[in-house]
Amino acid sequence: MRLFNKVAVIGTGLIGGSLALFIKKNKLAGEVVGVARHKASLNLALKMKAIDRGSLSLGIIKGADFLILATPVDLIIGLRKKILKIAGKNCLVTDVGSTKGKIVALLEKDFPNFVGSHPLAGSEKHGILNAHPDIFKDSLCVLTPTRRTSMKALSKIKKLWLRTGARVALLSPDEHDRALSFTSHLAHIVAFSLINSVPLSFLKLSAGGLKDTTRIASSAPLLWQGIFLTNRKNLLRAVNSFEGNLQKIKGAIIKNDKKLLTNILKQAQNKRSLIE
Amino acid sequence: MRLFNKVAVIGTGLIGGSLALFIKKNKLAGEVVGVARHKASLNLALKMKAIDRGSLSLGIIKGADFLILATPVDLIIGLRKKILKIAGKNCLVTDVGSTKGKIVALLEKDFPNFVGSHPLAGSEKHGILNAHPDIFKDSLCVLTPTRRTSMKALSKIKKLWLRTGARVALLSPDEHDRALSFTSHLAHIVAFSLINSVPLSFLKLSAGGLKDTTRIASSAPLLWQGIFLTNRKNLLRAVNSFEGNLQKIKGAIIKNDKKLLTNILKQAQNKRSLIE
Repeated sequence: MRLFNKVAVIGTGLIGGSLALFIKKNKLAGEVVGVARHKASLNLALKMKAIDRGSLSLGIIKGADFLILATPVDLIIGLRKKILKIAGKNCLVTDVGSTKGKIVALLEKDFPNFVGSHPLAGSEKHGILNAHPDIFKDSLCVLTPTRRTSMKALSKIKKLWLRTGARVALLSPDEHDRALSFTSHLAHIVAFSLINSVPLSFLKLSAGGLKDTTRIASSAPLLWQGIFLTNRKNLLRAVNSFEGNLQKIKGAIIKNDKKLLTNILKQAQNKRSLIE
Repeated sequence: MRLFNKVAVIGTGLIGGSLALFIKKNKLAGEVVGVARHKASLNLALKMKAIDRGSLSLGIIKGADFLILATPVDLIIGLRKKILKIAGKNCLVTDVGSTKGKIVALLEKDFPNFVGSHPLAGSEKHGILNAHPDIFKDSLCVLTPTRRTSMKALSKIKKLWLRTGARVALLSPDEHDRALSFTSHLAHIVAFSLINSVPLSFLKLSAGGLKDTTRIASSAPLLWQGIFLTNRKNLLRAVNSFEGNLQKIKGAIIKNDKKLLTNILKQAQNKRSLIE
């Protein structure tokens, strides 16, 4: 069932590319066009049949009735006026950025049919090569409507995500950014800091624990600096809370307090059991 | 090929149980006996054929020519005099503890044929139920001989670990504890602190990143408080180094310094690529 005439995906990476593949596979659009920064990834997107046509410049999005903004968050913000000029304000628009406050506030002013999305389906892998139409299946996709959001646009975006097999949750952009600062962004900060702390000569003595704990430290630096800096306030609060918890464990170790230390670890074990 | 007459495994958990299963499966001993703290785990060890006979008390180890000490590290230290009294000083002895300085210093005084082992094959799982004779295959086992270590004992212990499929590395107890404080113990501290920082109501918004980063926060609290407290000095140094690296990222976020932040994340990404 065709939902769109012309879909334009700006940023054909892991998430944009996967959504394009899903739309093409299920024939949800008459045409899917893609914009990327590098010729090589455009060629890959064409070869993988994620898009019908691709371009390094935004001109190709003209006439689209659905725009998917899937570049790193800070780029979305920088490109918005140019996109508006070419695509016009009436098309349905979503983004897939990992922070929502800033993006939603700016984009919903420009596009009356904008709905913010955040599919929690990424990983430390990136690029179209890792894209797959099924990556959203059984994952969670957070939509972030506001008072200004068109109900019709929200309903259409929600329908698309449900079709991918994702569960959909609705949160305000603020709630989203506060929650994700703890459940995703803080975990990345911690992983980056942890691997940077391990002396090079000790790396050969790593076991499974360090590998898991630092897997997401392989994530793309440019993507993540943008996420961190567009969610600074929440993130700094999350880092402070983490530092407090680290101090508690450190204090128990300094005081050689077996009982306190065991209690802190038990609390962690119990909490961890709630997420899987 | 039989290497031992009577093997006694004290602590038939994940590691002790797996090694017992390996020894039994390959008929390396005339008999394998096990000591555990709970009747249920003894029964399981018997049912899984990890041991031929089991007991809740140490008397059963009498006459063993090879002792495997596989309880949490602080228990090994507490039990050593009792073990010595029953088993005598001449048997071959190894432990599988995650910290080596304190254990090796004490045990090599009591047992002239003691060699410290640390198979890096554990996980957040524990107990005999998760034991398997193959868990050591392709993992790293660190042996920690000292000036006092008998070369004959070392060679026999090394041969056993190589038979399990593990690679064997030799480090001094100090080198081991320094390295592992970074590559294992610090990662656990960080995982425990991270999950303790996430507000309960946000847990439902967790994605793969948080799950991986906190997987080892499910590790057994009693086991890990013992590991932390028997490696306090090194661990506190590792935590300090981590705090320094966390401050660097935090500082770059506070200053909104895109370039510095990207460089820190690139350093982390490069370093992470070296361990897998």
